[in-house]
This record gives sequence, structure tokens and C-alpha cells, in this order.
Amino acid sequence: MAGMRGLFIPGPTNVPDRVRRAMDIPMEDQRAPDLPEFTLPLFQDVKKIFKSQDGQVFLFPASGTGGWEAAITNTLSPGDKVLAARFGQFSHLWIDLCQRHGLEVEIVDVDWGEGVPVERYADILAADQGHKIKAVLACHNETATGVTSDIAGVRKALDETRHPALLFVDGVSSIASIDFRMDEWGVDIAVCGSQKGFMLPGGLAILCVGPKALDAAKTAKCPRCYFDFADMIKTNKDGFFPYTPPMQLIRGLRSSVDLLLSEGLENVFARHHRLGEGVRRAVSAWNMKLCAKEKRWHSDTVSAIQLTEGFDSNNLIRHAYRRYGLSLGMGLAKLNGKVFRIGHLGDLNELMVLSALGGVELALRDVGVPIKAGSGVGAAVEYFHQQGVALSAAAAE
Amino acid sequence: MAGMRGLFIPGPTNVPDRVRRAMDIPMEDQRAPDLPEFTLPLFQDVKKIFKSQDGQVFLFPASGTGGWEAAITNTLSPGDKVLAARFGQFSHLWIDLCQRHGLEVEIVDVDWGEGVPVERYADILAADQGHKIKAVLACHNETATGVTSDIAGVRKALDETRHPALLFVDGVSSIASIDFRMDEWGVDIAVCGSQKGFMLPGGLAILCVGPKALDAAKTAKCPRCYFDFADMIKTNKDGFFPYTPPMQLIRGLRSSVDLLLSEGLENVFARHHRLGEGVRRAVSAWNMKLCAKEKRWHSDTVSAIQLTEGFDSNNLIRHAYRRYGLSLGMGLAKLNGKVFRIGHLGDLNELMVLSALGGVELALRDVGVPIKAGSGVGAAVEYFHQQGVALSAAAAE
Amino acid sequence: MAGMRGLFIPGPTNVPDRVRRAMDIPMEDQRAPDLPEFTLPLFQDVKKIFKSQDGQVFLFPASGTGGWEAAITNTLSPGDKVLAARFGQFSHLWIDLCQRHGLEVEIVDVDWGEGVPVERYADILAADQGHKIKAVLACHNETATGVTSDIAGVRKALDETRHPALLFVDGVSSIASIDFRMDEWGVDIAVCGSQKGFMLPGGLAILCVGPKALDAAKTAKCPRCYFDFADMIKTNKDGFFPYTPPMQLIRGLRSSVDLLLSEGLENVFARHHRLGEGVRRAVSAWNMKLCAKEKRWHSDTVSAIQLTEGFDSNNLIRHAYRRYGLSLGMGLAKLNGKVFRIGHLGDLNELMVLSALGGVELALRDVGVPIKAGSGVGAAVEYFHQQGVALSAAAAE
Amino acid sequence: MAGMRGLFIPGPTNVPDRVRRAMDIPMEDQRAPDLPEFTLPLFQDVKKIFKSQDGQVFLFPASGTGGWEAAITNTLSPGDKVLAARFGQFSHLWIDLCQRHGLEVEIVDVDWGEGVPVERYADILAADQGHKIKAVLACHNETATGVTSDIAGVRKALDETRHPALLFVDGVSSIASIDFRMDEWGVDIAVCGSQKGFMLPGGLAILCVGPKALDAAKTAKCPRCYFDFADMIKTNKDGFFPYTPPMQLIRGLRSSVDLLLSEGLENVFARHHRLGEGVRRAVSAWNMKLCAKEKRWHSDTVSAIQLTEGFDSNNLIRHAYRRYGLSLGMGLAKLNGKVFRIGHLGDLNELMVLSALGGVELALRDVGVPIKAGSGVGAAVEYFHQQGVALSAAAAE
Repeated sequence: MAGMRGLFIPGPTNVPDRVRRAMDIPMEDQRAPDLPEFTLPLFQDVKKIFKSQDGQVFLFPASGTGGWEAAITNTLSPGDKVLAARFGQFSHLWIDLCQRHGLEVEIVDVDWGEGVPVERYADILAADQGHKIKAVLACHNETATGVTSDIAGVRKALDETRHPALLFVDGVSSIASIDFRMDEWGVDIAVCGSQKGFMLPGGLAILCVGPKALDAAKTAKCPRCYFDFADMIKTNKDGFFPYTPPMQLIRGLRSSVDLLLSEGLENVFARHHRLGEGVRRAVSAWNMKLCAKEKRWHSDTVSAIQLTEGFDSNNLIRHAYRRYGLSLGMGLAKLNGKVFRIGHLGDLNELMVLSALGGVELALRDVGVPIKAGSGVGAAVEYFHQQGVALSAAAAE
Repeated sequence: MAGMRGLFIPGPTNVPDRVRRAMDIPMEDQRAPDLPEFTLPLFQDVKKIFKSQDGQVFLFPASGTGGWEAAITNTLSPGDKVLAARFGQFSHLWIDLCQRHGLEVEIVDVDWGEGVPVERYADILAADQGHKIKAVLACHNETATGVTSDIAGVRKALDETRHPALLFVDGVSSIASIDFRMDEWGVDIAVCGSQKGFMLPGGLAILCVGPKALDAAKTAKCPRCYFDFADMIKTNKDGFFPYTPPMQLIRGLRSSVDLLLSEGLENVFARHHRLGEGVRRAVSAWNMKLCAKEKRWHSDTVSAIQLTEGFDSNNLIRHAYRRYGLSLGMGLAKLNGKVFRIGHLGDLNELMVLSALGGVELALRDVGVPIKAGSGVGAAVEYFHQQGVALSAAAAE
Repeated sequence: MAGMRGLFIPGPTNVPDRVRRAMDIPMEDQRAPDLPEFTLPLFQDVKKIFKSQDGQVFLFPASGTGGWEAAITNTLSPGDKVLAARFGQFSHLWIDLCQRHGLEVEIVDVDWGEGVPVERYADILAADQGHKIKAVLACHNETATGVTSDIAGVRKALDETRHPALLFVDGVSSIASIDFRMDEWGVDIAVCGSQKGFMLPGGLAILCVGPKALDAAKTAKCPRCYFDFADMIKTNKDGFFPYTPPMQLIRGLRSSVDLLLSEGLENVFARHHRLGEGVRRAVSAWNMKLCAKEKRWHSDTVSAIQLTEGFDSNNLIRHAYRRYGLSLGMGLAKLNGKVFRIGHLGDLNELMVLSALGGVELALRDVGVPIKAGSGVGAAVEYFHQQGVALSAAAAE
Repeated sequence: MAGMRGLFIPGPTNVPDRVRRAMDIPMEDQRAPDLPEFTLPLFQDVKKIFKSQDGQVFLFPASGTGGWEAAITNTLSPGDKVLAARFGQFSHLWIDLCQRHGLEVEIVDVDWGEGVPVERYADILAADQGHKIKAVLACHNETATGVTSDIAGVRKALDETRHPALLFVDGVSSIASIDFRMDEWGVDIAVCGSQKGFMLPGGLAILCVGPKALDAAKTAKCPRCYFDFADMIKTNKDGFFPYTPPMQLIRGLRSSVDLLLSEGLENVFARHHRLGEGVRRAVSAWNMKLCAKEKRWHSDTVSAIQLTEGFDSNNLIRHAYRRYGLSLGMGLAKLNGKVFRIGHLGDLNELMVLSALGGVELALRDVGVPIKAGSGVGAAVEYFHQQGVALSAAAAE
């Protein structure tokens, strides 16, 4: 198929050319005497992406799932109780992982399309007088439903109930794309992966771990070795690793962190909001609805869109891929066949979003969904134009 | 600026990833004993792109301008007369080059927006009883105005007047993108460059030279050395080159020729027609006009679009580039400020065209041109959709 | 520093240019409908590298350490007994990992410089009438000492004692470089990593798991999720993965497997033997000794060389790196300061080995070790020359 | 064939990884409004490599041969007389090019193995009272014979005879590798190519042209268009080009110039001298002789080595390439079969030279040339070691 493919799944995201080049390197000696000159500043700069000064960064050759496992096994002991809400495939999977590692999970089931139920968390924490709950889990951005949760609210719930539980956040599809504040929100472990906001291929779990969680690691009894914080701490402090690091990704990480910091995190967030809103305008123009039930849940990194009734979203997605090289996200689990997802995160701009929306319109027309060609793109164009006008006006003041 | 840039100038075109990788190689010995195993089949396969069996391919480290010079200096002598039409910046420049090399050019000036005036060529050739005219020049696709000319018609004019002049064609922005038939049309030299339909970076002039032109080279007196056919012939026949060849581009050429042949030339042409027509539908929806005056002149590789009166196309192009990373072609020479051009050739597909059209709409809105957002993209979507339906129907029969 | 760096550590190894290009790709949708057309044949072809028909391949985003963990946690339960020999840093670390996961390890300590003590294994297995030992661990190639062990011998010990324990082999620095026969030797799990014989960057643990081990996974109680075989089996069978796969490495793996199979495994092994022997000839010419005590322990992938007494190998290595860009392997643990290691595995040939040996000679001279310049390289040249003569003679017959 | 190939021809040279990456980019708009921010400083920095302040840099998509043609056709008129010495294949070819462009060349034939005969030039210039000689040609480094000439001496000959002829220097295999001083030596045009000291692929002719030559261009009558200085001057001054520039190479040039300037030109020259001398020590150890007859002619970028009598150098070269992937330069023209050449320029270091020498020894042994294995490498190692000692001593003072 001629031309560039359109990758608009919610991760892996498009790798910027500069990052791609940064990974296209000969192999190197991971014990070279000058490696620390590269790694030590990198560890510090990655922390800036998490907005953390107190935390410590860990880079594991793993997927985000490995990051979840590292968070849990380093800080908890079999039988420990954790609190978690389930409102999508990814919040579900983290719960499943906890259970397999012998933790007792108090599960709060929430309608898919809503996020972490802060009030119910507060109630449960208040009721837990004996502090049996050792950790509270929160999925910042549920990739399956395009729902962003209120992490500051969860912290408030913990604070107001004076509950000492650790706060673990799955920020796989939020960090480096939308606002996340490790220290300010009192997050004890934040888990991210390389293949979303960090704009890298998959293969690197990126964690930031706060002092309270590091402390908990000293007594936690879940068996672990590969993901052990202690081995990492011992070698990372000198700029090295306990086993062969994936240097290709780590070199790429340097480049993507440079890009993020040079654009400025707040600008990155504003861009994601603008592009996400453009997509939402198109969805409205197509007379479709998001999975996310209310505006406060709207995710700026991924939109899960309910396809017009009577049509199979898998068919739409397959057609878009085969005929136009356009990759969209499937509906997962109970959303399968009903939902298609547009990932709008990472190395993205207006032209790319318009390409995605145009491609979706074309595929929708082809499979017979009654939309007006150009309506979605037009709504996004109009919105982007107005934003530009607003920006120019602001700049002119 | 985040995200991919949109390159929609009429060359250099987007380099396919596979071709890019084919050029990302360590240097090699251009006198290696096994080089001919690579070069000799390549020479043959490049000829297929020209639809030539009788011709010989020449690869000069040069731009298309160098290709023009090679064609002229190898076959003509100072003082020789050539016939050429001028209807755009590139047909103009080739004429200028001929004059600088001491040729006498009979120039037929034609309105910009039309192509080679076949009837007037016929008249002039008929009148040239003494056969003073040694070569007839024709620009197959004038990149400045988006006009495609009728090369078969020029051949017919030569044949009907039994005129022995050589026929030289500038196919820089046509060959490998739209229908071109070296042997069938009796073209004696066809000049192309690497950076358009061949989907490579600039730097390689690609010529196909027929037997009559090779014959003329034996007596032509224009001084030449760098571009001398004879030196190339002597070394190419064994698979080598008279001086250091640009192996990076030549390795890339292997890859791009493979892509073209594997898609199939007729499919390549059909794709260019479909994508070009999508652009033209958008132009109509914006209530704008092409430079090309009639349908028969419409180019499937580039559209030169007359911007709504009262607006400066340079301003539009600058804004699109600076704000959205969208590169459009400027209006050249007398079209400057009035025209913008969309290149739609090379490694291109529907998603990319929709991205370009969406970006143009956005930029048009920003600079105040009164168009309806989504109208152009919608028209293209609708056209692409209908084409898909037609294709499916055809396939189902 | 000008020029290419010399990477002669025992992994990561040099990535062939073709493999590097195979990884230099845009990201892709790991749920694309056509991904199985790529993954399913790859799984089969990777098995050929292990010389296995009965086994199943697993690709985890992890280092070799993760591969060790996957092997152990999927097949054993806390408290299970395993038999393992310790004769170098890597055999030591695998034992440590087992202990951290709650296994009881019967450790056989062996002098560093020897390999798996087959006879003592046999004695212990014979004495284990109650079959308390659930798994036997063997490090095929101890990277720290340059010692290759006799895995067929271990199998024989198991067979002769009719002991049902599983046989797990660490083949990280052997598989794809020296002879390894999964099925013939009755290996139940073989663990490898991407960054040695597979000539890729680090980041992929590559396992081959036989039917007996897959069976054991059904009842094994070690907690696991990230490394769970069952999740992989469920999705791999359709060509997909349970979480985001490191597609960059997996695309690279396709390329490196193609290279290995096209060279032919036996040719790969012969090449490693020839190049390893060249290094050993140089070591002798320098009047130094290998760590490996006897010829039968000689590793064809890495030579651990005892530096002339009175000199600090760390100093030598640092100097070689800083002045000449030459990376050599350090002496690990108790060998630190005494030993330097030359990795001679992966994408390697005579020119590269001569470069390494020349560089070592230069560094040795610089730090004052009394060797005759050219002696080691000359010995290797002479050996390579004789091998060529022998090959030619063989070919002529 | 496994492993890296050894490219030790005198160009194309090995492209540094960083430069290779700089060329691995998407295509770009050569008329983008921000292009001058890139091109204008580059033009200035390239001049530093020529050690020129007064000159102007020209970048033509062409080989070095095109550079020769540009120099000649822009400054001279048909029938003009030039003085040139012939002492190798490349000085011969430039003369041939002049003749084909209608110049009268006063040829001074010199034994191959010697360089520009400064005294005879002086005599001829002194005798040319009428100043019929319009230009003096000098090949700074004859790549065919490994001979470096005394350009300062030629300038002195011109000055002492007060002869106004222009001085044109072929610096293709010298500039950016060995000492060259455009302004100080009063060179009017210096011609270089991308594929030698500039460490790029072939495809770019790089010229530096002084004011006197620019002045001559105003009246020179040789027909030209593609290589016309005036068209370049007109567009380059604003940072653009008269036709599609080879942006891939020009982006690479930025990177290679950065590398050269960051190493420091004098360090680059010292490195070339050290590495070249290492090769010469090896040649002596093999009991062979250079083509270059005296020490003052020794080239630090290429050594043309007379193979022991009775052996065919083509056979040696073919064997080295086919068996070991080692590329050496052939003997050209009358040296064919008698000479092999080692290119030692560009992105080169000690490890690479030792690899080349080791490979040559191996190939020599294989084809039966009686040399002692290790002798050449040993001599080079010993020399490099002593140089290091000297450097350290100097640094310690």
C-alpha cells in the first residue's frame, strides 16, 4: 500500500523522527565508564515529566503490565488488601494482576464510561478504621473507555480520612500527555510505559516511586527479583543497571524527554487538549456519542466512540485498516463491536488529526454509516481555527 | 513543532520508509567485483518505468536540470535549431538552458494554463522543409501550472510531417506517476529526476535515451564531459560508472523501482488519477479554479490553484508552513502570489490527501478566505468513497 | 572520537546493519488484522534456532534475567528443590533468583574455570531417590569465565538415574552461536536473550519451552502474572500478545533469524569456533592463560583472559575504551581486576577479530604489559590462513 | 557474509554513524521560509574547512568530476591555455576534461610516484611572458599513486614569476583530511567531493571559489548552465538554490562539518598523519615499497603499495573482498595489477587501521605472498604506542 499508514490507536503512538534516529545506533557497552554521564542526568530529567522531585525513577525492560507488577510486588505482601475501581479493561487487568500475586482486592465496580469514584473511595477509606487497606489503586486514564479520573480527588479522600494507604496510579496513557503531578498529588508510585506519551516503541516500563513506597519496599514480602527495586537502586545510583538494559530505548528516552521538555509540559498538555477537543467536535458532528459519560471524564489522549447502532465497529476498523492503512483502536471486552477508539496522543498535530478524521469519515461512508462527508473534519477545522484566533489574540495583548 | 510535517509540494516528494531504509547503509566500494550483479538488472528495470525496451538508461549525479543539459549537449551542436513551447516556469528554464548552450530556439509562447500546442508544432514542422529543426522539446507535465501535455500528439505531428527531428521530453514530474510511453510515443530522450515519481531525495538525473539519440551523440559537437553519454556507456555496460556514483541514491532507486513495479505501473497511474481528482473536487467545493484551463490539461501530479482574488498566496503558504508544518508549492514567476500548488504525486494515499486538504482549509480559514470548513475534504471523501464502490463493484463482477 | 568503536564485550553484540534497518520503522498496531501473518511464522522459525520441534517459543519484553524468572516461576512452587552448579557470576545470579522466589537450591560449587560437574550431578540425582529435586539448572555458557558446559552430559545423567526433574538451561550466551539442541538433549526450558547470538539490542527474553515444562506450568504455584506462560499461550496462538509487545525488537528478530538461517546454523557454529580459536591463538602468543581450565571448557563465544600478573585488568579495559574506543569485558566478582574478556560472538568476522586483537595489543603495550607487538594478531592471521587453506582443500575434493 | 565489511578504499570513505543519521530524514521543502536559517551558516562553516574567508562555497549535485567541470567552464573560454602536470589517473582525467571543453593544455608529464613539479612550473610560467596561460592546475593529492603535492610551492612559483594565471587545485582526496589553506596559498578554486574527507556518500561537488575566479566568471565564454556560478550566487545569497538541491547530502554535510570542526582541523590532520604513518610502517615491515617515490610525496590519505613482484594485485584485491569483505583500492591505468591501495582517510582510527592491516596480511598469506604474519600490524601497533607515549609526555609537560 502506497503512502504513510495512519496510526491512531491509543498506543503505541507515532515515534518522532528525531527519536527514531536516536534509537538507530550501534550497540554499546552497558558497563562503559562514561555511561553514567548519560544515565544519571536522564534519571533526573525523567522525574520532571512526572513532576516529581522526591521520587526515584525506575526503567525496567518490560511493558506497562510489568510496571504494574513492579509497583505491587515491591511494596506489598501476600494477603495485603488494596482498594481498586474497575471501569474498563485496563483497570480490570491491574486488579487481576494483584489477585494473582495473592493480594486481596476490594473492587469497586463502576459503569464503564465513568472514572474513579472518589466519593465511594472516601467512604470505604473512612470505614477502614483498622487500616487494612495498604494501597489504593487508581487508573488515571482508562484507555479502553477514554475516561480520565481525578487523582487529586483520590488524594483528598486519603487525606481527609487520614488514611495511610499508599496511592498507586496507572498513568500509562496519561503521563507525558495530560496533567500529572506526582508530588503535589501525593502519588506514591506512578506507572508509565514507553509507547504512549513518551513516544517510543513498547518495551520500557517507566516508574516513579516516592519515598513512602521505597520505604515499604524494605519490608514487602511479595517474591520478586527481576522487578526488584533494591537491585536497581544499588546499581542505578552509579549510573548502571543490574542486568542488560535496553539501551536502544533508553537512548530514545533521552531524545523524547528532550522533546517534551523543549516543547514545555504545559504546552504539551494544551496541545493534547486542543487536538482531543477537535476529535470530540467531529464526533458530535457525526451524531455519535463518546463512551465517557460526562465532560469531566473526557480524555484528551483517547476517545472511545460509540458507533451508530446497527453497525459493527470491528468491521469498520478492519475496513479502515485494509483499505486505507488507518489503524483505529478496537472496543475491548464488553465494548467490542460497539466502540471504536481514536488515539490522539503523543507526537501529534492538527494535520494528523484531520487525516485521521478524514479517514474515519471515508471508512464510515464505505461501511454505510449515515454521516455527512466533511462534517466531522469541518467541525474540527472550525474549532482549530477558532483556537488559533484565540491564541493570536492572546499573544497580541 | 510536534507531529509529522505535511509535504505536499510537487517534489521532492515523500520518501517511502522502505526506500529510506534502503539508503541508510554503510558506504560501499563502487568498483567491487559484485557491483554489476546489482547495477545491470537495475538499468533494465528502470527502463520498464519509462516503458522502453530500445532505450538506454543513464543515471547522473545531478538534478533534473542536469538531465536537460545531458540531453541537449550529447545530441546537438552549437547553432542547431530546436522547437520548444513556453507555458510555465519549467518549460521556460529548459529553453533558457538551450540558449546558453548556443542553440537557436524557436519558441512558441502559449498561455500559462495550456500545454504543448500540438497543432502549431505540426504547422511549424510542416513549414520546416529544410529540416533545420534538429530537436523538438516538450514538457510533459508543467509543474508550475499543473498542466499535462499530449506527447503522443507531438509524435503524431512529427510523423505526419515526416520530420526527422529528435523528440525530447521533460518528464520530471510525470514519469513514474502518470502514463508515459517512451517507445510507443517515439520519444528519443526522456528526462526525469529522482525526487518526484521515483520517491527519492533529489540528486539523481534519470534519463532514458533511444537509439536515434544515441546515434546523434556520435556527431554532436556541444562540449561536454561530466554529462557525456559515451563515458557512461563505456563503463555502464560492465556495471560500473566513469566517476563516483551516488550509491546511496542508486540503492534507493532499486527500492523505489521495486515498489513501483510491485504496485504495477497502471495501478500507480490510477492511484494518481484518483488522488488528483479528489484534490480537484475539493478545489471546486472551495469555489476556486485551477490554473489548467481545460480538463484535458489537468495534471494528476500537481494542481496549481488560483487563490480567491484579494488574497496573497505567499501569505497563505507561509502561514500553513509556520503554523501547521504544511508545505505547499508557491506560485512561480508570473503566478507568484496568485497561485498555490498542491503536489499529489509519489508515495501518497487517501489519508495523506485528506490531511493536505484539511490543512489547506484550516490555513484558508485562518487567513480569512471565505470557504466552508469541511467542504473540500467532504467532496474528496465523497469522491474517494464512490471510487471505492466502483472498484468493489468491478471486482465483484 | 573518530571512527567506529570496537564492541568486543560478550553482549550486547554488534547489530548487523540489516537488522538495524529492520528495527528502524514507524510504530505499528499490535492488534492489526494482518499481524499474525508476521508473528506465527516467526514463532516457528525461532524454534529452529533452538533446534526444537516440540517446544513453544515465548518472547517477553525483558532481559535474560527475566527469562530465568519466567522459567522458574511458571514451573515450580515455593519450597521446591532445584539442583544447580555455581562456577561464575551468571550461574551464581540464577541461583540467587531461585532463592528469592522461595526455592530450595542444592548448590554445587565448582572452581571458576570449570563447568557443570556432570558426574557430581549424576551422583546427586542418583541419591535423590525421593525425587525431591524438581528441576536441574545448567548454565550452558558461563559468560563470566568463558566456560562451555556439556548439556548432553547432564541429560545423560538424568536419563541414567531415571530422574524426572526438569532440565533448564541458561543459553543466553550460547544459543544461536554455538551448538545447542533443545529436543535432542531433552532440554525442558532454554533461556536466551536478544542481545547475544540473536544480534539484537537488549530487551527481549527468548525462551523455548518443551511439553513437560508446559505441563508443569499447569500446577506450579509461584505467583506470576507478567511472565505467565498461560497468558502468552492464549494470545500467541492467534499471533497476538497479552500486552504491548516490543515490536521494534520483534521485527528485528525476524531479520536476525533470517540471517542465521540463511548462513546456516552449522556454518554459524563453525564460524564462531574459527574466530574463537583465533583469539585463543593470540592469547597463547601473548603468554597468557584463559580462565577456562581445560580445552573441553573453551567457549567459542567469549574468552576470559588472565592478565599477566602485576597488572590491573580494569586499568587495561579503561585505557582501551578511553583511548581507542575498544570495549572489552571486565572481570566479574572474584575475577575483577585480574581478568579481561573478549566477546567473540554474533555478527563477527576475521577483520573484526583482528581489529580487537590489534587493539588489545596496543592497549597492553600502553599499560606496560610485556608482549611482542603483532604476536597475537600474527598467530590469529596464521591460524585463519590455515583454516582457509583447509576449507579450500575440502571444497576442491 | 557475517560482520562488518572493511572499507579501505580511498573514497567513498566510511560515513560516521552520526552523519548517517543526519541523512536519514523525511524529505523537506527546499523553498521553505526557514531553510536559509540552515543554509547560510552552513556555507560559512564549509569555508572554514577550506581555510578561506574570502572565498565562496558552491555545492553542486555532482561528483568531483563535476567540480572540475564547474571550475573550468565558469572561468575560462574555449582556446584558453592552462598548465597542468600529469602523474596519475586523476591528474590525467582533469586534463582530458579541459581538452574536451576546448582548452589548450600544456601538459607536463612526470613519473607516476612524484607530484607537481614546482620547478618546471616555475620555468614554464617564467617563459610565458605573454601570459597566455590563464590557469594553472594542480592535483593536491593524486589518489592513484598516493602522492601529495606542494601547493604552497606552486603559489610561490606564480608569485615569483608575477604570473597572473588562476590557480585551481584538485583537493578531492586532500581537503578536510590533510592541511589545505585556500587563502594563505592563494588558491583561486579548490575542488572537493563529498565522499572523502567530508565523510559523506558521493553526490556532492564542493567548491570554494576565490574573488579572482569569481571575477573571471563574468567574462568566461565556456558554455554552461547546470554548473553556472551566477545562478548559484543569485539564489544562494538568500539561502536557496537554482534547482532542487540534494538536501539529504546537504543535511549530512552540516553534520560532517560539525564533526570536523569539533575535532579541530589540526587534530584531524594529525590523526591522518599518525594513521597514514602506521600504514607505512606496516608496508616497510612487509618489505614492500610505496608508489610515492620520496618521503615528501607521502600521502596521509592513501597509500599506493607496490605488491611483491610476481603477484597480481587484482587477484589479491578480489580475494580480500570475496573472502573477508575487505575493500582495497585497485591499481589504476598503468599501475593495474601491480599496485594495491589502502585508503586511510575520513572517519578512521587505530582499531580500523589495524583491522585493515590484519586483513591485508591475511589476504597476502592466502595468495602466497611471503610476508611474516603479524609483522605489519606489529609495526603499526608499535608506532601507535610510541605516538601515544609521546602525546602523553607532551600533555604532562
